[in-house]
Order: sequence, then structure tokens, then C-alpha cells
Amino acid sequence: MDEAARLRAASGLHRVLRPRAPRATATARTARTAGGAGGPVELPVQGSLQPWTNGDLLLDLAGNDYLGLARHPEVVEGGIAALRAFGAGSTGSRLVSGTTTLHGELEEALAAHLGFSVALVFSSGYAANLAMLTVLTGPGDLVVSDERNHASLVDACRLSRAEVLVTPHADVAAVDEALASRVWRRAFVLTDSVFSADGDLAPLPALHAVARRHGAVLLVDEAHGLGVVGPGGRGALAAAGLAGEPDVVATVTLSKSLGSQGGAVLGPAALRDHLIDTARTFIFDTGLAPACAGSALAALRLLTARPELPGQVRRRARQIAEATGAPEPAGAVVSVVLGDPERAVAVATACREDGVAVGCFRPPTVPPGTSRLRVAARADLTDGDIERAVGVITSAIARTPAP
Amino acid sequence: MDEAARLRAASGLHRVLRPRAPRATATARTARTAGGAGGPVELPVQGSLQPWTNGDLLLDLAGNDYLGLARHPEVVEGGIAALRAFGAGSTGSRLVSGTTTLHGELEEALAAHLGFSVALVFSSGYAANLAMLTVLTGPGDLVVSDERNHASLVDACRLSRAEVLVTPHADVAAVDEALASRVWRRAFVLTDSVFSADGDLAPLPALHAVARRHGAVLLVDEAHGLGVVGPGGRGALAAAGLAGEPDVVATVTLSKSLGSQGGAVLGPAALRDHLIDTARTFIFDTGLAPACAGSALAALRLLTARPELPGQVRRRARQIAEATGAPEPAGAVVSVVLGDPERAVAVATACREDGVAVGCFRPPTVPPGTSRLRVAARADLTDGDIERAVGVITSAIARTPAP
Ligand SMILES: Cc1ncc(COP(=O)(O)O)c(C=O)c1O
Ligand SMILES: Cc1ncc(COP(=O)(O)O)c(C=O)c1O
Repeated sequence: MDEAARLRAASGLHRVLRPRAPRATATARTARTAGGAGGPVELPVQGSLQPWTNGDLLLDLAGNDYLGLARHPEVVEGGIAALRAFGAGSTGSRLVSGTTTLHGELEEALAAHLGFSVALVFSSGYAANLAMLTVLTGPGDLVVSDERNHASLVDACRLSRAEVLVTPHADVAAVDEALASRVWRRAFVLTDSVFSADGDLAPLPALHAVARRHGAVLLVDEAHGLGVVGPGGRGALAAAGLAGEPDVVATVTLSKSLGSQGGAVLGPAALRDHLIDTARTFIFDTGLAPACAGSALAALRLLTARPELPGQVRRRARQIAEATGAPEPAGAVVSVVLGDPERAVAVATACREDGVAVGCFRPPTVPPGTSRLRVAARADLTDGDIERAVGVITSAIARTPAP
Repeated sequence: MDEAARLRAASGLHRVLRPRAPRATATARTARTAGGAGGPVELPVQGSLQPWTNGDLLLDLAGNDYLGLARHPEVVEGGIAALRAFGAGSTGSRLVSGTTTLHGELEEALAAHLGFSVALVFSSGYAANLAMLTVLTGPGDLVVSDERNHASLVDACRLSRAEVLVTPHADVAAVDEALASRVWRRAFVLTDSVFSADGDLAPLPALHAVARRHGAVLLVDEAHGLGVVGPGGRGALAAAGLAGEPDVVATVTLSKSLGSQGGAVLGPAALRDHLIDTARTFIFDTGLAPACAGSALAALRLLTARPELPGQVRRRARQIAEATGAPEPAGAVVSVVLGDPERAVAVATACREDGVAVGCFRPPTVPPGTSRLRVAARADLTDGDIERAVGVITSAIARTPAP
């Protein structure tokens, strides 16, 4: 839990959750409009509409709305239509009363887009990850897990009661060795496709080759891959030609590029029935709210209709990386390594004070000496936004000496 | 996992998820309108708008929309306003970009309604339960857990790595004995307030007295209590005068009486900061979608403005219980025990064929010899609905001989 506390302290938001206010409306007296469909939002203090930074608009490069679709009119309208047609909640487990026709349409669209036979939708990406591990693995099984995998995958491993071997980041030889080191009933190689903090890509082709050689299954969390990498944003597995392989299972969230909430597990045809039969976070959880399903479906249709969006967000990310001296990003996330943890926090705070929200990671979330800013690009950023962001970030770095 | 598979098979929906279609619209050719704001819905087969039972409307007594608010115009409008103001998704962790002013308002309203100092909102009730257990308990701690507790509480216990002792259902003496039987660092008594399958009330005053005597903390899942029991639907803890006590922590879901999606943990003031600092399903999960927060807040305001709603649903439940010979229900859930598992499934299937959806539970979800229908009342049922439901259920029972 220390990790979490530190992550939170590092985010500069200690003891306060700074809520977003609604977009400029009659009631938001101090709000000012700003460019971009998913553009700048105001961060007021908790429970009030007072803006956080003296009425300045915040350019949000901390969130994961990579395609800027969360506020897109069609995505908003998709949610509204679902609310009107089905109501605010799904009223029960998907097995009882919680499945609407929208859930089925969304599942078919997700499977088609990502190149898998089937998909099953959950109330969150977190719940989808818990389901993937707990239904596929158990005592006697081996899960080989990258040390930088997301917290939800770590919790999923714990719940699965399989034996878990944690390997160094993106270390294919270590995965090979781990698979060879044990006697197991079934084995699984577990990895994020695009890592949340570093923004780098997992070596999926090599991992799959190793997994297949050992008869293991490759499990990939495409949370930060969907909508950002691969042809038309089909994800890193599609880019590697691995989507739909019989020994590959994937998860996605609907809460990042699709701008909504929810998650899904994707895989070979038999997997869906198996999840429906046995996944506790499916059976014993209320189905995803219709509004979230409707918005995610609208976002997915926009992504299909506009296959240039993923290229746009990657281009914006590259521009930010070039101007800040960060390594070339694989997707939307730019990792500006500053080294010292206090310096990273000071720079992130300075950026925020200058109206640009960025993430900040320190050890143990990242290795010692690699404290960093996490700057998330969006497809709807303008040239002006990039100029402003880069100006604020580089000036904050320049004014903040290493200790 | 067998439990889950059997539960699912018992629901009579083997291998098929029957989705709900939108309410009668131009596109839903076979849909017919029906009375009641949360009234009958059609259950077509997957991925089509063909109704499941030859165009018959289904009276839904299987879901958990106890107050009939999921389709209430104000609840729908609350979600729409939130979608318009904040977008379809919260775009990130609550700690980074995922907190809107709505989340804060909802948390204050939940705490005030349930009589606790603070509340913190999660993306589901499942996630709230995982958070409650994992932040409060750990290795060296003891959790005494009722054998009928919900699956999400069971998973939460597993993730917590505390020692878990499962006690017979509602057995206060066994809880007392369990607390006395071990040396522990901290101890917790964990229970649903209203049990999901049986619809009965936990003996909260006695459990709290025992917990307090031992210096243990009482953890209560009010998923089926909120909106149904207690003064104004404030829950079973409020009814027992225990809400807000320093050694009581509660969770709720926003997905049952509030007709939306999401969950919350409620407790003493310091708990909120502790959750924010350490709860992995809070820190590493995308914040609840604005539409869900907006709908839940609107539902909570309706509940506050109409304190007679909980009494209405309880009255409807009692009417169903009386007419079917079921024991008097504590809340909305009527448990019609039929004994034999095949008979229970046959009766549930017959009810569905006659247009009334009810739940069905068999061992091991319920003790052997107590297979049953789960009939959930709603506050918006009409006298006609009750008559129809009771007629269908009693006739299905009468026509289905015990084997
Ligand atoms: C890699 C990864 N997987 C899963 C999740 C969880 O998804 P969700 O927020 O939709 O629950 C996240 C972030 O929230 C993530 O970054
Ligand atoms: C007692 C109980 N707790 C928790 C949950 C989980 O809540 P949610 O469906 O909002 O995730 C449920 C049902 O779904 C429940 O019945």
C-alpha cells in the first residue's frame, strides 16, 4: 500500500481530490471556454465551483482521454440515447436483468475492431482483468508477470491463487527462463501492451514466440493500446499480427481512448462462455450502465470511421517528446525522466500552477533515479496546445534545479 | 467457480445472455408499452430485437431496481445533464483527472443520507467492497465473515490476506466464539445487512455489541439495505442506530435502489483519507463515469424527497410474500422456498414463459433442500402488477409437481 500512498503524494494532490467543474455554463461563473473538443478543463477545489488556479484554465495532459472523445458530441449523444432507451442502470447481473441489446452490439463491435472472435463487457477494466486471471488460472498454474504490470493485473494474480513469477521489465529471456524453471499445469505470460507509466511497448512478438514454444498462453492488457497503436487503433496485438491467435487473450478498458467507463475480455470463441459461467466479477456484479455502453459504442464507431485518429495522437506525443528530450513514445504517453523525486514533484507542481496538468511518478512506482513526468497526448490537441504545453513544461524544468 | 456455474445454470439462461431491448421505439418493432415507470421490459434474444417470449412483455421481478428509479425521468435527466457537463467518462483516476464536482456532491449526499461522516465513491459496489477490506485488514488480522456474504466480500477477504473465519449464517454466538478463538492484531465482523438471496436482515445490534465487546470493527454491506430499509431508506445500520458509530464501516452500491452504477465506502472521517491514500481499486481505477454519478445523485435526491418509497417497496414485497406463502421479507426480496432444485428451475422457467421474470437459487448458493425463487419487489409496481405476478407464480408452482 506504500506504493499507492507514495504515488498519490507524488501526484501533488495530498489530502485533496480536486474535482473538475462542468464545462463553461451559466452556473460555472468563472469558467472560460477553450479550444478543442476534449480541451482544457477547470480544476476547482472540492465541492465548489471556484477554480483551482485563480481562474486559469488547465490544459489536461494527465488524463487518458487519448482521442479526445470523452466530450465528443456523438459520444455524449450515444450515452444520452442509451439512458433514454434503457434507463440509468442495468438493474442487475448480466445473467439476470443486466444485459441490454447495447451490450451485445458493443461486444460484437469490440471483437471485430480488435480482431478477436468474441468479447465480453465488464463494469470496468479492473473487473475485466480480475476476470481474465481468475477464470483462466488457478492453483498449480504459473503466471509469469512483468514487474511493471498494472495494479489491477497484480491484484488479479493474487486472486487467482496461481503461482506468480515476476520478471524484469520487458525481459524476454527472463520469461523464457521462468517458463522453464517450474513444473506447471498450465502457464501464462502476462503483460501490459503499452505500459502506463513509461509509455513503452511490450515485446509482444518475442513474448508470444516464447510462450508458444512452452505451450503457454499470452495474456495482454491493451488498456493503453486500444485506439492508440496498431492499424486504425486496433492495438498492439493487431500490430504484431497476434490478435485472434488461439493462445492469446486480451483485455481492454472503455475508459481511456473510448472516453467512457467499462472493460472487456477478448479471446477465442470458447472463452466467452467460460467467462459467463465462471467469472465472479461478471456474475456477481451489476452489468455496465447503459450510458457507458452507449458512449463506448459511439466512440468505437468514431474510431472506425476515423482511422487517422490514432496517428494523430501518436504524432502529438512525438512532438511533445522531441521538444522535451523524452524518448520516442510508442503511444500517447510521453515519459519525461527527471531523475530526482523531489525535482519531479516540483516540476509537476510548477506545470500545474502554470495551467498544464501532467502526471508524476516516483519510486517505487518507477525504478530509483528515474522519477518522471507522465505527459499524455490527445488526438484533439492543437498546435497552440502543444506550444503552450511544451513551453510550460520546459520552462518548469529549466527553473527547477536538480538538488 | 462451481458455485458460479451452478448459479448461472440455475438461472435458466444457460449459454445465452438474453439482452433487454430499448423501450418501445420505432426500431423495436415488436415492443409494446406497459405501465409503471420501471415497468415491464422485453427480453429479446442476443443481438436482435426479437422478443424472447413470442412478443410477450416481461414483468421484471429479477432485477434490483427496488425503487423503480432506473427509468425515472429525473434520474435519466440527472445522467444526461452530467454527460453534457462533464463528458462520457471521467478520463482518469480520481487522483489525477477523474474527480468532478459531481463526485464530491454525491459523496456528501451519500454520507448525509446514510448518517456517516464521510463517503468515497468507486466505479462499482464490487470495487468498494474490495477497497473496504484491503485497506482496513491485512496479514495478522482476523475477519469473521457470515457464510452467506456476497461474492464481492468473499473476494475482498481473499485479497486482504487477513485470516478469515466463516461463521454460520446470522449466528451471533459463533461470531463471539470466533473473536475469542484467536490472537489477532485487529479484528473485523463482516456481514451483508440485507442478504441478497434470502432477503433476511443481519442481526446488526447483536453483532455490533459482540464486536464492540471484543474491540472489533463491524463492516456492513448495505447493498440491499439502502433505499429499502431504515427510516427514509437510510439502511439497516441507521435503523439499528449504528450509522456513524466510530467502529462501524459500511459500503453501498449505486446500482440497486439508486438505479445507476457505482459504489461507496462510508465511515468515520479519517477513513476517507485512508482510502484515498491506499485503496488500489480507487487509485488505479478510472473514476466513476459522470453520467452514473449524476443519475445516482438524482435518485438519492428523489429518495430524500420521497421518504415513503422504501415503505412502498416493502409493502409490495409483503404482498407477494403473503400470497405465495413466503416468510415475511425484511426488504424488497421475497424468498419462495420450493425445496427441490429441479422444481425451482422448472417453476422459474414457467414464470418466465408466462411473462414474469424471477430469480432462482439452488445449492450450493443456498443450503440443500432450500432451492427457491428470488422475487424482487419494486416501489413502482401497481396493484395490477402484483396480481399478475402472484397469479403467474402461484399457478406455476401449482402446475409443477415436486419430483
Ligand atoms: C494498464 C491498465 N489496465 C487496467 C486499468 C483499469 O481500467 P479501468 O480504469 O477502466 O478500470 C488501467 C487504468 O485505470 C490501466 O492503466
Ligand atoms: C450484497 C452485494 N454487495 C455488492 C454487490 C456488488 O455491487 P455492484 O453490482 O454495484 O458492483 C452486490 C451485487 O451486485 C450485492 O448483492
